[in-house]
Amino acid sequence: MVKKTKSALHLSNGVDKPPSLSNDAVEKFKKLRKKNLSPKDYFTGIREGNRIVLSQAITVIESSLSEHQILAREIIEKCLPFSGKSIRIGITGVPGVGKSTFIESMGRRVTGRGNKLAVLAIDPSSSRSKGSILGDKTRMEELSADPDAFIRPSPSAGSLGGVARKTRESIILCESAGFDVIFIETVGVGQSEVAVHSMVDFFLLLMLAGAGDELQGIKRGIMEMADAIAITKADGTNKKLAEQAKREYQNALHLFPPASSDWTPKVLTCSALTHEGIPEILDTIHEYCDLTRENGYFQTKRQEQAKYWMYETIDERLKHDFYNHKKIRDILSSYEENVLKRNISPFSAANDLLDAYNH
Amino acid sequence: MVKKTKSALHLSNGVDKPPSLSNDAVEKFKKLRKKNLSPKDYFTGIREGNRIVLSQAITVIESSLSEHQILAREIIEKCLPFSGKSIRIGITGVPGVGKSTFIESMGRRVTGRGNKLAVLAIDPSSSRSKGSILGDKTRMEELSADPDAFIRPSPSAGSLGGVARKTRESIILCESAGFDVIFIETVGVGQSEVAVHSMVDFFLLLMLAGAGDELQGIKRGIMEMADAIAITKADGTNKKLAEQAKREYQNALHLFPPASSDWTPKVLTCSALTHEGIPEILDTIHEYCDLTRENGYFQTKRQEQAKYWMYETIDERLKHDFYNHKKIRDILSSYEENVLKRNISPFSAANDLLDAYNH
Repeated sequence: MVKKTKSALHLSNGVDKPPSLSNDAVEKFKKLRKKNLSPKDYFTGIREGNRIVLSQAITVIESSLSEHQILAREIIEKCLPFSGKSIRIGITGVPGVGKSTFIESMGRRVTGRGNKLAVLAIDPSSSRSKGSILGDKTRMEELSADPDAFIRPSPSAGSLGGVARKTRESIILCESAGFDVIFIETVGVGQSEVAVHSMVDFFLLLMLAGAGDELQGIKRGIMEMADAIAITKADGTNKKLAEQAKREYQNALHLFPPASSDWTPKVLTCSALTHEGIPEILDTIHEYCDLTRENGYFQTKRQEQAKYWMYETIDERLKHDFYNHKKIRDILSSYEENVLKRNISPFSAANDLLDAYNH
Repeated sequence: MVKKTKSALHLSNGVDKPPSLSNDAVEKFKKLRKKNLSPKDYFTGIREGNRIVLSQAITVIESSLSEHQILAREIIEKCLPFSGKSIRIGITGVPGVGKSTFIESMGRRVTGRGNKLAVLAIDPSSSRSKGSILGDKTRMEELSADPDAFIRPSPSAGSLGGVARKTRESIILCESAGFDVIFIETVGVGQSEVAVHSMVDFFLLLMLAGAGDELQGIKRGIMEMADAIAITKADGTNKKLAEQAKREYQNALHLFPPASSDWTPKVLTCSALTHEGIPEILDTIHEYCDLTRENGYFQTKRQEQAKYWMYETIDERLKHDFYNHKKIRDILSSYEENVLKRNISPFSAANDLLDAYNH
């Protein structure tokens, strides 16, 4: 299996600044950096498509300062009525599957068709300081230079719930800024797929041909969430293998229970090198959207997702408050140990801990 | 698809009373019913293998009276050191797959090999009053008359978490009473599989041949949890179809990522009518246990499950307290409505609700 070296879009903040900015704009950018913007300033800037303001607003969302959190809520509420008009696409696959080159190739086709693209990421393990800026810029050279594309790395390390929430909120801002296609990238090795799945309209799984060791990185259950599987690197001598893998996955998907969307997951092959198969993937996504908009599933799913995020946020905060309570922090590990040693049942341990928390 | 008519083991309490009881034992049973047993009485009775006391103790676990809950905790803690020695087998499949006849056939082989079998169930939708006692007795006629088998229906309706917890606790009591094989039955149509999966050593999925409409009842993701799939009703003219389904599922499972147990899920065919294939399923389970006991996975999984249940119980109670709080009950639905209408973001709604709860 290919070793995990680059886990997600470790881009520096600088990449958010479009390279096509004039000197004037750079000056304005510097001034904005220094000034404390009001929620209304942020809102106006975002709605005008000012990506410097957009970047700053996302930074506010990502901040853990409580004054920033209050500010973030105000910005989001203002943007909310103007959000929701994009197609949100989740893209996942193990390291080595060629996610960056795929996003570069696919992203260029998206903007080439006249759309505005925002690329966000969820990777709870990421940390900007760890990412190689040069490496990342090289990885998406064309796309990061594209004036119609906005690339934003994953929020810095934090709990998956926290990172996912921040990305989910950033979608609202990007949509309000006029981006009509959103990619949410994640690494196909953990729970983050579930989080991505709960915030996108279409879930695309990238896979390598030669269904052997490479598969190990894909967690069970992820394949069943996919609306499409794309076998990457279908070029040169690898093309035949990719076609064979395509047939195998088609047979496998056929055995899965049908999704409530009435959509039959597709398996495609593509090459980010020759760009073969990339337009077909875009067409497939549009086909999906046409079908599900027609039968109402598109809207239903979005409403379910909104509800999901309300309850998810509540649950996350309830747990956060509990596990960060001083009393609990002091005794939790000894209870866990006693449960593992079977000195106490899991249920009694839970009851004792809750009693300690509530009294 | 076969209509759901009988959702689980709707057995009357009376079935717990072994039919082989002498008149003396029946008298003792009646006396025990009236007397208030102490935790020590319960413990002694359970350890002696007295299934009347075992039944009563499970009833205490299932009770929602707070005095019973305290009593239940004491009984469980006393039994805990004597539990853990069984093989816990989860059995699931959509209604119509022939779960009852399968359990009857398989259960008779278990006791025939000299083991003592307890059959428990998780079905949050069940309610004893709704179950047809006659129908259920007929369904497992032989097994319910078997002195080495103990059949207990699902706890009456309640939240899945609550029902699952009660079943999980009942396992501890059954094991302390000397039952060394435990079946946990559930219907393959919902979240309850996840709960069952988190309390068993081996997860068996029953499937019908003819992978068409029948599959719709099986939720996505369940197939990937299975340690074995058994194609039922492989008899008569159906045999050929079952063999074909077996090959198809084998190919599909082959594409799934390997489990951390190092076990390769098996696909088998069986008939509860001719009993063909049933001994092979039992052998497969023993094979699994040998392998995972050898490589340490068996024990690791049990420890992980115990930890899981501690955290699961905490999370469940935190949510229960929140959603049953008067303030929250009064305002939750209007917040949900506003989230669906996009008048407020899911995150702001969550924050407002938590503020109301905490102040």
